[in-house]
Amino acid sequence: MPNPTAAMLVIGDEILSGRTRDANMHHLAGELTRVGIDLSEVRVVHDDEAAIIAAVRALSAGHDVVVTSGGIGPTHDDITAEAVACAFGRPIGVREDARAILAAHYDARGQELNDARLRMARIPEGATLIDNPISAAPGFTIENVHVMAGVPSIFQAMVASVLPTLTGGAPLLSQSYEIRRGEGDIAAPLSDLAARYPDLSIGSYPFIRDGCHGANIVIRGADGARVDAAMTELAGMFPA
Amino acid sequence: MPNPTAAMLVIGDEILSGRTRDANMHHLAGELTRVGIDLSEVRVVHDDEAAIIAAVRALSAGHDVVVTSGGIGPTHDDITAEAVACAFGRPIGVREDARAILAAHYDARGQELNDARLRMARIPEGATLIDNPISAAPGFTIENVHVMAGVPSIFQAMVASVLPTLTGGAPLLSQSYEIRRGEGDIAAPLSDLAARYPDLSIGSYPFIRDGCHGANIVIRGADGARVDAAMTELAGMFPA
Repeated sequence: MPNPTAAMLVIGDEILSGRTRDANMHHLAGELTRVGIDLSEVRVVHDDEAAIIAAVRALSAGHDVVVTSGGIGPTHDDITAEAVACAFGRPIGVREDARAILAAHYDARGQELNDARLRMARIPEGATLIDNPISAAPGFTIENVHVMAGVPSIFQAMVASVLPTLTGGAPLLSQSYEIRRGEGDIAAPLSDLAARYPDLSIGSYPFIRDGCHGANIVIRGADGARVDAAMTELAGMFPA
Repeated sequence: MPNPTAAMLVIGDEILSGRTRDANMHHLAGELTRVGIDLSEVRVVHDDEAAIIAAVRALSAGHDVVVTSGGIGPTHDDITAEAVACAFGRPIGVREDARAILAAHYDARGQELNDARLRMARIPEGATLIDNPISAAPGFTIENVHVMAGVPSIFQAMVASVLPTLTGGAPLLSQSYEIRRGEGDIAAPLSDLAARYPDLSIGSYPFIRDGCHGANIVIRGADGARVDAAMTELAGMFPA
């Protein structure tokens, strides 16, 4: 059985303007790979309701799991919760359990649960809350979509909360081998190797270091013995 | 007139598996913003022909400019050129001008232009070549899609080649202001400010530093005097 597939939706003008470099995609990719879920697609869109709605619908329909990051804070540009509710045709309003979490958090700090903060208790009908151990304001899960914060420390905590609830597949084993020759020199034997191991994924990732061309060859598969066998052949073809 | 919009398609299993952290998106985002082109959407897909074709068609139809990165090398997992040709219904084959560029490059280095390397001269019919000053193998432009290499140094060189050929818009001016308070404390006045300056984009990007909440407020717009005015008001509301 093929592994489950996942998609990620990054919501944020700050990524698309080049102001901020996204860190959440790389984190999620590594975590999903570890539990045998194939991150198949990532999309990055503006803080724009129509763009979020279209992407949520397309990704939710096409994948087993969707994770979003960004746009669930208290400011006017945080529109993710509304857009996700709309994507699924669900009403959204302040929910009592979410309000209680926020009230306890701000009470303990002597801060006011004002209207802006209360926006973070707006949860689409029928959603499940995702715990936020960093700053209390919860994420939520609706159907197969997990809506998380964009601040990396909070995003990572929410991923840690949700990951154990997901059904993973066989974790992909992976080995890599660095070859200090141009890809053009290794392409033909590599292609032969890939043809002889159709059950494995063999990728070549070129680099230029100190002006010299090289490539990292990554061999991935669920069967460790097969990965070992292919890697042994590869190392025999291109001794270090 | 609104600025032209762009989309980026990143092609690469290594990004989606978490093995490599993408660097090209951040570079392209900054370069496009500088010339007044709005990067509106980014997609990341596997080295998978159907996924590349679907994404190229959707992004090409929805945006003025599309830039792809990755998958144009000589190895068996480099399938971008074929997929892009297919997306536009164009035949693809070795083109003489591309072959000549490669032949000169490898001749000068005493290396063989073997079959694998010759694959990099396969260019869809009607495409224009994109210069590659680093390793010769060209990218290409077909309709509004610019197909570039994934290796960051080559990607950046290709972006530099193509950027002057694109029609930009009014460069967005941007100023930012750091406020060392939680977003919940600043959301209401910020929302008022945004309502009074509907011609500007006012974004709030929260962070947690040394355990304290803060936010960077970024004000963007084409009219520098308006950006200045809004920023002066903001600084008055939240003195440093």
